[in-house]
This record gives sequence, structure tokens and C-alpha cells, in this order.
Amino acid sequence: MAMSLFEKHKGIIDRAIQAINERSYYAAYPELPKVYAEDSATKASEAYKNQLSKKFELALQGVPVRWAGEEVSPYTQEPLDILYPIYDVEDTIEKSRAAFKSWRKTTPSERAGLLVESLEKIKGNFFEIALATQHTTGQSWIMSFQASGPHAADRALEAIILGYYEQTRFPDKVLWEKPMGKFSVKIEKEFHPQPKGIGVVVGCSTFPVWNSLPGLFANLVTGNTAIVKPHPKSILPIAICVAAIQQTFMENDYDPCTVQLAADTVRNQVTKELVLHPDVKLIDYTGSTEFGNYIESIASKTTFTEKAGVNSVIIDSVADLDAVLQNLAFSVSLYSGQMCTAPQNFFIPDKIIAGDHEVPFDEVVSRMKDQLNGLVNNPKIGAGVLGAVQNENTLKRIEDAESLGGRLLLSSSAVRNEEFENSRTVSPVLIEAEASENHIFESELFGPIAIAIRTRDTIESIKLAKELAAEHGAITCAAYTTDENMMHKISEEMNEVFTPVTFNLTGPIWVNQHAAFSDFHVTGGNSAGNASLTNPEFVIKRFVWVGNRRMI
Amino acid sequence: MAMSLFEKHKGIIDRAIQAINERSYYAAYPELPKVYAEDSATKASEAYKNQLSKKFELALQGVPVRWAGEEVSPYTQEPLDILYPIYDVEDTIEKSRAAFKSWRKTTPSERAGLLVESLEKIKGNFFEIALATQHTTGQSWIMSFQASGPHAADRALEAIILGYYEQTRFPDKVLWEKPMGKFSVKIEKEFHPQPKGIGVVVGCSTFPVWNSLPGLFANLVTGNTAIVKPHPKSILPIAICVAAIQQTFMENDYDPCTVQLAADTVRNQVTKELVLHPDVKLIDYTGSTEFGNYIESIASKTTFTEKAGVNSVIIDSVADLDAVLQNLAFSVSLYSGQMCTAPQNFFIPDKIIAGDHEVPFDEVVSRMKDQLNGLVNNPKIGAGVLGAVQNENTLKRIEDAESLGGRLLLSSSAVRNEEFENSRTVSPVLIEAEASENHIFESELFGPIAIAIRTRDTIESIKLAKELAAEHGAITCAAYTTDENMMHKISEEMNEVFTPVTFNLTGPIWVNQHAAFSDFHVTGGNSAGNASLTNPEFVIKRFVWVGNRRMI
Repeated sequence: MAMSLFEKHKGIIDRAIQAINERSYYAAYPELPKVYAEDSATKASEAYKNQLSKKFELALQGVPVRWAGEEVSPYTQEPLDILYPIYDVEDTIEKSRAAFKSWRKTTPSERAGLLVESLEKIKGNFFEIALATQHTTGQSWIMSFQASGPHAADRALEAIILGYYEQTRFPDKVLWEKPMGKFSVKIEKEFHPQPKGIGVVVGCSTFPVWNSLPGLFANLVTGNTAIVKPHPKSILPIAICVAAIQQTFMENDYDPCTVQLAADTVRNQVTKELVLHPDVKLIDYTGSTEFGNYIESIASKTTFTEKAGVNSVIIDSVADLDAVLQNLAFSVSLYSGQMCTAPQNFFIPDKIIAGDHEVPFDEVVSRMKDQLNGLVNNPKIGAGVLGAVQNENTLKRIEDAESLGGRLLLSSSAVRNEEFENSRTVSPVLIEAEASENHIFESELFGPIAIAIRTRDTIESIKLAKELAAEHGAITCAAYTTDENMMHKISEEMNEVFTPVTFNLTGPIWVNQHAAFSDFHVTGGNSAGNASLTNPEFVIKRFVWVGNRRMI
Repeated sequence: MAMSLFEKHKGIIDRAIQAINERSYYAAYPELPKVYAEDSATKASEAYKNQLSKKFELALQGVPVRWAGEEVSPYTQEPLDILYPIYDVEDTIEKSRAAFKSWRKTTPSERAGLLVESLEKIKGNFFEIALATQHTTGQSWIMSFQASGPHAADRALEAIILGYYEQTRFPDKVLWEKPMGKFSVKIEKEFHPQPKGIGVVVGCSTFPVWNSLPGLFANLVTGNTAIVKPHPKSILPIAICVAAIQQTFMENDYDPCTVQLAADTVRNQVTKELVLHPDVKLIDYTGSTEFGNYIESIASKTTFTEKAGVNSVIIDSVADLDAVLQNLAFSVSLYSGQMCTAPQNFFIPDKIIAGDHEVPFDEVVSRMKDQLNGLVNNPKIGAGVLGAVQNENTLKRIEDAESLGGRLLLSSSAVRNEEFENSRTVSPVLIEAEASENHIFESELFGPIAIAIRTRDTIESIKLAKELAAEHGAITCAAYTTDENMMHKISEEMNEVFTPVTFNLTGPIWVNQHAAFSDFHVTGGNSAGNASLTNPEFVIKRFVWVGNRRMI
């Protein structure tokens, strides 16, 4: 008998289980492009250019009713002019239902092996996916490579492996023997994890791969089928992934329609029709709070949402203020604040301790402004860090932020990108506000918008950050303190509203980053989302334990 | 330093972890009353009589606004005349909120130790709880002892231990080190399971302890506080448990209001006010489908429900027909079918195979009738197996069943109980129906009502049982077949609608029974309930993983 795909990938699988249980560092897919084949970039560039103004074929998924595509590159501001196959929802569901019949009968280990094999196929497209991500989301090329390539694949692997682990944690079969005095009752028991049905994964425009792969692979490893509904403005990156998975399934004699793409257009969105379908039992969603709340409210569906949040920074005391502000300026600017993990509100008391002396609020803010200016105007990295603004709504929000109130310290202006002269790239806005002016900072201002809020002391900073997280949700909180007691206080208070705290980051690591196998991304406990990548709940809610018994 | 309660109970805890992971037989609390102290029964009887017509004091919970009680014994049909303290909902919530502040700061192991200690205290009241259960639910004394005593304590222990296990599966602290070429980034990470808040446990009138303890202890071990809202007609058994837990907490210097009783009356039920309170984050519910669906629909609450279901028996082929029918007659009659696991619909083809010959439907049904009559009329065990009917509604349902349609094979009549001449005890109803008469058998007929449904063949039996489970929910399915292929077919089809199947039970073990540490009670996958005792989901949905990071 040929080696199974599970055996083939046993090394990766075992290593991933270990990392998940230890929460230790692991990366199955290196994040440095240079580690991959030398000619990958060139080939991918040709493949990407060759795909423009053409139909994106998904032949394994059948004949579409029409073709459509609306993507526009935030770098060139020109349409990609790629047409995607559009299917009737009922047709997609029917194919998924058919695939479910056979897919549900496969074993968790069989699925895990095939899904890791699919990731390996996707890996072969990392460079092409990177270009596709760059020209749909506006991420820089390097960020596109990392976020939609190795980082997304690692998070997908994490979901696969935790799903496999949870489904195999109880014995398939056990002899249960109950002593009854002179004799015993013997029952043979079997325990089967049963999949729920069809899962729909609704993607967003800024992280079309990273935010979609975990739910997609969590559905698949637990025996459910999956339909990916991308944002109509960011289809290409995930379409390449879906095609690679379908190809892998076909090559290994599984139904390629176990995973399908349900592309649509802005005017004819199929999300509601899909998620309301009675055969759809699972919904993964990344996007606005309003639509996310609607998704969560649909009766009889298991939902996993990531919505908006308001992320805070609490500055109490630091060793090296400029190192801190440099790190934070980078966090705000990275991909123009279009990360759900980007900090927005900086709570800074009248005076902070920096090293062995006090620094007043005004000076902290002024040095923060300098760091932002320095980064943006750095010809080597400024434009690259900022990337491009994905859409006009975000651009308008940045403009509007200037009239939110408070004191405008930095207004936004166009930033020149040497490679793409039409790039939609702008510098961050920095606003100063008083603690009482909460109308300025109480909502998520998606984009490169930072608000420095003057507080009485760190206790007030914590109180405000906690209230915001409790009411509006939060995905990250960065805090700076050299005082162990204050560290304890901050983590305790913020953890109570289910917000993780990251302390004293400086150097080349930012609060925006959550590492696969170790960090839970979103806790699921506050209104920023009801799910967490990848805690046990993220996988076990996708299947049901059913036990059968048999008298011996 | 004194031995911690965790260390004190380490033996039980380790053994329970092993049983849960292996799904093997374990009972921490023996189900035979004679194993317990010899004078327990006498003392309990005195304590029970002494409690009648008095106030049930819960002094540790504070001064109530009034006293009320409405329990009536189904055996004597006389009021127990016990008055319970009634508190304002807001007062109960306020006490719970205060207790939560300190309880959330305890560790999972500290909680597990204290909660096992609480079970040991409850164990000292098993005999009194048994009498209380008998005279509120109508269960026989022996069933009351087992169900509200050792079986409930084992299921509570299971919830405690799985909750402890899940909260300690990841390291408290880990050093995460990411290689960055010439140097590495070092981050110290901590992982904290955070409780959600206050949990309300809504009980039912038939299993006031068994159905309430798992949710109650699952809440507590995960750091949440708990408010028990019993059915106004079955307060005493769980009141004794709550008092014992409060006592244990006080003796060990924890806030006794970590657990509270919220007794109410039929006319002034506080369930809605309690569960809708914004501080209540978790709801455990056992009861009607209608109210259960309402509970599930409340936004922003984590809910665990057990509602109505329609349980099927599929008879295909048997070795010894009378042994099978004897077992099934017992299952139908046990506590007058007032168990959520009791079988209702018997799908029997025109002919079945029994041993080496064919037996026609009519003969199977006729022998089933004989077995039911034999059991009910057995002076030694009949009245004991039936127990008493908890309330008038169920009695009316039994009477109404006789005019449901089909062919009435056995009508219900009063059964004499030697010990209690006023006992509300009646014999089961047996109806014969055609497969097409689904209006007769498609709803749960709570009580001792069995319907023998004539089908074309076992394939039709499976089809009907599956459809009923999919639409109306099911908690158990008993099946009899000597054919391995048919066994596979039945389990596969029923498992698809998240219904466990028990095959070929005869002798002193019944489909009604689900064993702690091994059997999942309710799967959570169909409309009989959205939770399962005790699968991992039952505990992990009660807390949130939050990770903190700190740069080294």
C-alpha cells in the first residue's frame, strides 16, 4: 500500500501538535521569500500579468452562469479586469451537499493528510498569491507575501492540526465494563465526531487569505464542506488558493467541490442567500460589526466572527521613549492601520516616566509625531510600510478624521510611491484629545488614524481602555510600564474584558502580529468577535460527538 | 502548610481524568445505598419529616424578602408545606457579582479541590436528597437515590474535572523565541482562562438535581458564579445541594454566595428576569422546547439547553424476542416514561427475524403488550418501576393519548402502590399505528406512552426514525439487529442526525441510562438540545482564553 498523505506529512503534523500544546514558536512555512525557489518571483510576476484581463478558470467546479470581476489595484488604481465564474447559489449548495456525502465518511487523519498536502500545493503559489494580494488589498509586496503566504498557511495548518487532535482525543472504540456484583455488564462503545454540514467562509477586502484560511481548513478537517465567499474587490488571492485545493483533491481522487468559490459582485452579493440556506450550518465571517452581528443572530447556525474593535495603547513608564514611539509609529503606519490589530487610542498621562526622568504628555506626543514623520518621510521604507489604502471609504474616513475634534497634530497627505505613481498612499493622522472627549475615540477609525488621549494618570488610562474594550471590543492592547505591579494591574483589568495585553514591545516585533501555534488571534470574549484563532472552541464547535453502544 | 483540597482529592481527580479520556467505566460514588452508612436512611427520614411544614433556611445567602413554597408529593398528593426564602433578583445578582470578584481570582486547581470537597459534603445528604427527590418528582425511592445522589455527583465530578483539565491544557507561561537570523526575539507569554460572569442554571421538575449539577459545577470550576433557579414544584432536592455547597465554601473561607438559590413560585417566576439580566452570561436550561428555543435566542448569552425529543426503537432482528421486549417494557415503564431518554416510538416491520424464525408484527406487538402487563402487574416491582406521575399535565397527556388515533392496545389505568395509597401511579398506554399515521407519533408524548409503528421493512423504520430525529430531536435510539451490515446502516443514518444508537440491550441495563465519564448525554446536534453532558464544548464555552505577552 502506498504511503498515506498523513504518513507523508507526519513530521509537520507531530511538530504542529507539540507547538500548539506548548504554545511555543513554530513556523512550518518560512516567512522569508528568499528561502523559496529562486525563480519563483519572476515566474509569479509573469503568471500574474498573464492572468490580467482574462477569465479565472475553475473548471473543476463546473460551468458558470456568467463571468464578472470588479477588482481595482490600489497601487495602479486600474481594474485588474479578471473575470470570475459566477454560479447560482442553489447550484453551489447542491454540489457541496453531494461532496459532503463522501467527505463526511473520510477519517480525521485522512483529511489532515490531504489538507496538509493542499497547503503544500498552495505554497507553490505563494509568490503569485502575494502579487494578487498586493494588487487587491494594497498591502506592500513583502507583507502580502508573508500574510497571504506563510503566515496564512501556518494558521491554516494550526486549524487543521488542532481539529485533527480534538477529533482523535477519545478512543474510537472502548470496552466499558460495569461490575454488578456477581457479574458485569459489558458494553462496546464507539465515539464518532460527526460533521455539521456545509460551511460558508465570508472574506474581507484587506486580508482575503489570512482571515479565510483558518475557518476554511477548520471546516474541512472536521468533515464539513466549504464554500468561500470572497469580498468582490479581493477575489484573486483566495481564488488561487481554492483552485490549488480543488486540484489537490482531484489529484487524490476526492471531490474537488468539497471546496468551492462563490464569487459575486458588489451589486449582486450572494452572502445572505448563502448563509441563510438551511443546508449551511457553519458561517465564518470577517468584516463590519453591523453585518457580523446579523450573522451571529441567524438561528441554528454555528458562527465564527471577527468584527471591529478599538485597540488601545497604555503608556505608563518606559526605559527608552524613542524606542517605544518608533515601535508604535510603525504599528500605526503598517499597512496604513488597515489591520484589525493596529493600535488607535494612545492613553498617556500628564507625565510619564522615561528612564530616570519625567516626560510631560506634550513632549511624548511631540516625539510621537516626529517618529511618525520620520517613518513616513523615510524614502527607503516609508511608502513600503504604509502600502496603499484599499478603498475610497477608508480614504474618506482618514480625511474626515481631521475634523473629528480635539487638536490635529498631523494631517494626512499623499505619499509618493516610487514604483507606483498612482498609488493610493497617504500619511497617518495624529489627533490629540482630552479623556473627556470620548466621542472622538470611542469608535473604530479603520485606517492610519492615531489619537493621543491625555489622562490624569495610568489608572484613568486603564479605566478608559477597559470601558472601550468592554463596549466596543478590542483585539489588542499594547502597554508600556517598568512597574511590575502596574503590569499586573493592566493585564488583570484588560483581561477581564477579554483583551490580551502585550507589554514593552520595541524593535522588530509589533503588537499587530499574532503568531500561529502560540497567540490566540481575537479572544472571542468581547464584541470584536465571537471566535478565536485557533482556540479549541474554534474547531470543536464544527462537529458533534456521537457515541454508539452495543451489548456484548 | 496544610494540605490543599486539590491534594486531598488528587486520587479521585486523577482517576476521573483517566476515565474521561478513556471513556471507561468509573463511579466515584457507589449507586448501592447499602454501601453508605447504615443509619443514613433512618436519619434522613427523620430529617426529611422534620423539614416538612417549616422554613428551609439559607442563612448564608442573607435575609429574604418573603417565604414561599408550593411542592406537592406525587405519592401522597399532599403539600410538603416547606417555605423557601425568596430574594429580589437584583439582590441575588448583586451578591453574585460581589462573589465573582474574588472567585474569578482563584485557580482552576483550587476550584476543583473545593468543588470535589463540596460533592463530598453533598454525599453526606444523599439519603435526604433521595426522599426530597421522591416526594417532588415522583421517582421511586431507589431511583431518587441513584439519580439525585451518586449518578448526579458523578456527572458533576465529570464536569469539574473536564473543566479543570481544559483550563490547564496550555502552559501558564512559556518563553517564545523566534529566530531572526543573527539574533532572536524573545517573548514571555502567559495564557489565562477567563470566566465569563454569572451563570444561571434553570432546573426541571423531574430531575431537579441530575440535570442541574453538571451546569452548576461546570460554571463554578471555570471561575463563574452560579444562581440555581429550580422548578417551583421541585426545589427541596437542589436546595439541600446548594446549602451543602454554601456550607463548604464558608468552612473553607470562600464566599458562600458564589452559589445561590433563586426559588420562586409558579405565578411569580423569575426565570426571564434572571436570564435577561446583563450580568448573566451563561444559561443552563432543562425543560420545554418552546422555552428552550427562547433561551437559545437571547443575544450575547452562552446557552446550554436540553429540550424535548422523540426517541425511537428500531427492531430488525433479535436472538431472543422476549428478552428484548422485557428490556424495552422496562424502559418505557421506568419512572412512567418521564425520562428524556425513554423510548416512545417502536418501528417494527411486517415481519422480524427472532432467532431462527420469522415473527409477524402483530405477534411482536402482542408480546410487547404481555411484557408491559406482566411488569405493571408484578406486585413486587410494578409500582416501584413506574414511580409516580410528577404532575397533572402529564396525567392528562396519558389520558389524551388514548384518543390520538391508531389502535389502542393498552389503555392506562391506576396502579396501586402499597406504601402510598394516594400515589399518582398509572400503567402505560400502548398504541399501534401505521407508518403513514405520523400525526400520532411525531411529537414527544412525555409520559408512559409507547407507539408500535408498522413499517414495510427496516429501511423504512430507519427513514422514519431519522426524519423524526432531524425534525423533532432525539436523545436516544435503541436498535435491535443481528445483522452487522444493518447495524452499520442504522448507526450511520442515525448518527447523521446526531442521535446515538444503542444496540441489542437486554438484561439489567437500559437505553434510558447514560453513564458519567463515558456516555455523552444529548449530543447537542439536533433539536433535543444544544449541549452535551459532558463533552469538551460543555466546559470550554464557559471561559475565554486570553494571552498576555511581554518582551524580554
